[in-house]
Amino acid sequence: MSDSFSPTERTKLRRRPQRGSYDRDVVFAILDAGVMCHVGYVIDGKPFVTPTAYWRHGDELYWHGSAASRMLKAAQGAEVCVTVSHLDGLVVARSAFHQSVNYRSVMVFGRARIVEDVEEKRSGMRAFVERLYPGQTQIRDSSDKELAAISVMKLTISEASAKIRDLGVIDDEEDYAIPTWAGVIPVRTVVGRAVPDQRLLVDAGLPSNLGAFSDGARLDEVLARRR
Amino acid sequence: MSDSFSPTERTKLRRRPQRGSYDRDVVFAILDAGVMCHVGYVIDGKPFVTPTAYWRHGDELYWHGSAASRMLKAAQGAEVCVTVSHLDGLVVARSAFHQSVNYRSVMVFGRARIVEDVEEKRSGMRAFVERLYPGQTQIRDSSDKELAAISVMKLTISEASAKIRDLGVIDDEEDYAIPTWAGVIPVRTVVGRAVPDQRLLVDAGLPSNLGAFSDGARLDEVLARRR
Repeated sequence: MSDSFSPTERTKLRRRPQRGSYDRDVVFAILDAGVMCHVGYVIDGKPFVTPTAYWRHGDELYWHGSAASRMLKAAQGAEVCVTVSHLDGLVVARSAFHQSVNYRSVMVFGRARIVEDVEEKRSGMRAFVERLYPGQTQIRDSSDKELAAISVMKLTISEASAKIRDLGVIDDEEDYAIPTWAGVIPVRTVVGRAVPDQRLLVDAGLPSNLGAFSDGARLDEVLARRR
Repeated sequence: MSDSFSPTERTKLRRRPQRGSYDRDVVFAILDAGVMCHVGYVIDGKPFVTPTAYWRHGDELYWHGSAASRMLKAAQGAEVCVTVSHLDGLVVARSAFHQSVNYRSVMVFGRARIVEDVEEKRSGMRAFVERLYPGQTQIRDSSDKELAAISVMKLTISEASAKIRDLGVIDDEEDYAIPTWAGVIPVRTVVGRAVPDQRLLVDAGLPSNLGAFSDGARLDEVLARRR
């Protein structure tokens, strides 16, 4: 298996290629740090972008939704673009032009396939749970009826690229003379204190297998440690 | 001006319409709480989804990028779908099927137009800065040369819908007997301690106009207060 994806017409980084990467580990790390992706698809020639939860298993990216969903129907066998992005900082510059943000993003292109096999669907749903909540083994598995009500989509991650900005302020030399504040305001996505369901039969506190979701923990770091 | 958007073929909420809204204030509040959107567009019949910073001015949604950007070229005069989403929580249920997330999202559809007028471009860039960093009046305005190097796009917010899940766990009645932890793990996007640029001519600490960006402040709340 190659360590990096081959650039294609769609993934070739035209703008600021120095911020891009086709490295498989870089792409996977960005995917593995997130919960929600944005799936782009085309209906009657027009674009739609739907946010949805996803997971990765090896070289396959999965997402799911109602079997009746327009998005999932449209995406079956069709070209999609799945984008995952993380906002990491606001870059406050000394000119309007050089304002920027720090971020990590990945775009994956290809034809989405529907998972037809009921056991693959069931294990997919299990993988989704296990990825977010490892060790939640008590959870009831999906029934055939439930699996019939959902569609699980998969997309092979073979045409993909990452883009990262992880820099400070870059101002024009003459603008450094401007007496205004400039710098980076870091941004991170964190979890808060867990709110237990009111009908729990177990301790209200998070069980040890979910202990990583402690109040204030970075979500991307918790998820990355799962890998 | 109507208080809500009329549903169209594209924005009609088919799945869980009870979680949707066409209310203008709801849509605007979700847009005003974010920094990055995902712009969907079509090139040669295939979908592309590009994350980019955006801002709203009245009924217009703006974003910008390099004038050479493929995304901006493709989006000129073309149908786009701009989606903004905020992840608010992980909903840990007692079955694989009922796992969910809390979120707020908006989809805006329409034809993107390029801002041709140089003064409208300049004021757009100013509005982008003022939205994020009100009172940063010392910042150098964009030069004509800089404005020539970027494209500013705008999209009238007239065909739009919001979708929100802000609920606890919803399990099947019989699953409440399962002795496993269930509940909501809140998720929020916060700012960290600001990192001043090394060549500052002013105090390293955040100036008062940026004081809302204190360590740990919720980004969506800081941005919402700007309105």
